[in-house]
Amino acid sequence: MTPHPQRRRRGDDRREQIIDEALKTFADNGYRSASIAEIAERCGLSQPGLLHYFPNKAALLSAVLDYRDRLDYTRLGFDQDLRGTALLERLIQLVEHNMHVPGLVRLFTVVTSEAVTADHPAHEWVVDRYRNLQAHFVKALEAGIADGEFRSDIDTRAIARQIVAMMDGLQLQWLLDPEGVDMGALFREFIEELSAHIAR
Amino acid sequence: MTPHPQRRRRGDDRREQIIDEALKTFADNGYRSASIAEIAERCGLSQPGLLHYFPNKAALLSAVLDYRDRLDYTRLGFDQDLRGTALLERLIQLVEHNMHVPGLVRLFTVVTSEAVTADHPAHEWVVDRYRNLQAHFVKALEAGIADGEFRSDIDTRAIARQIVAMMDGLQLQWLLDPEGVDMGALFREFIEELSAHIAR
Repeated sequence: MTPHPQRRRRGDDRREQIIDEALKTFADNGYRSASIAEIAERCGLSQPGLLHYFPNKAALLSAVLDYRDRLDYTRLGFDQDLRGTALLERLIQLVEHNMHVPGLVRLFTVVTSEAVTADHPAHEWVVDRYRNLQAHFVKALEAGIADGEFRSDIDTRAIARQIVAMMDGLQLQWLLDPEGVDMGALFREFIEELSAHIAR
Repeated sequence: MTPHPQRRRRGDDRREQIIDEALKTFADNGYRSASIAEIAERCGLSQPGLLHYFPNKAALLSAVLDYRDRLDYTRLGFDQDLRGTALLERLIQLVEHNMHVPGLVRLFTVVTSEAVTADHPAHEWVVDRYRNLQAHFVKALEAGIADGEFRSDIDTRAIARQIVAMMDGLQLQWLLDPEGVDMGALFREFIEELSAHIAR
């Protein structure tokens, strides 16, 4: 039970520590103005020491985004092929969960917005992520039609985009005013209205 | 009709040129990684030459954001006290208009997201902007109730937040995929559903 702060961490632990500190740094400053030197210092490493694990800042950003993705994709039910209302209910839970992890939400908001410029190292990752989200949501909505939960004349592609937009937009308002904006309640209301509207 | 590129610009023209180049630079790189040196170079000025007009990068960002605001607030009808559906129709026009000014939209998206961190020089500006938008939208929705356009039991505060969130979220998707995302059509559909739902 005695901590051993001086003991040399094994490689995997060290990688995890670096990803964790990089995540905080990118979330605070954005990718572009974050520095490898600062992240190394937070980890108690020299710059060459950190570069042994990740050869450059872009590689580090990829590792951070993959980490965030693995967490979220599981929560989004990508591994479970959620159908119709089961996905909508999962999304409400996800937004409520996100209110407990502001650092991760801030990272995602800051980096996604930086990445609208084509020369950003996360540009392709972000474009792919939105493409995957869109495909996943459309599939779940179509499953809802097939199961007879939703009307067959709904525009699944438009609804998928609007759901993602509402999640992103509420996140931004919540980050700017965490006390004043209950993004969980606002998103739940939106989904409830939507569900009533598209129900068969 | 002969251009005089070498002629010394008057102060106001020069200020406008600097704001214009700063806007492009912030939109491309974000505020944090944009440099005064780069903006000065784009304007054909020395750094001290630029600093004569704006004492530092934060002052320049303020000027850029005020400029964008003056454009948008007029388009949003802040000066006209639009009521109920008149505001909703104005918003549809604004989103369609925004599809013609991707540089301005990118600036706003990048800087707003950077500014979720408290030490960002635009943090207070962004927080105030969302507070003003929220107040303006709530007022217009309440006017719609008073005029008998909308039901009296609607949650004007929640609806105002959801409208802003949908605008912001669709902007992000559109910036990431301008060919694939018709944010004007998606927003119009959202407002039409909403209008049908809240109509008296």
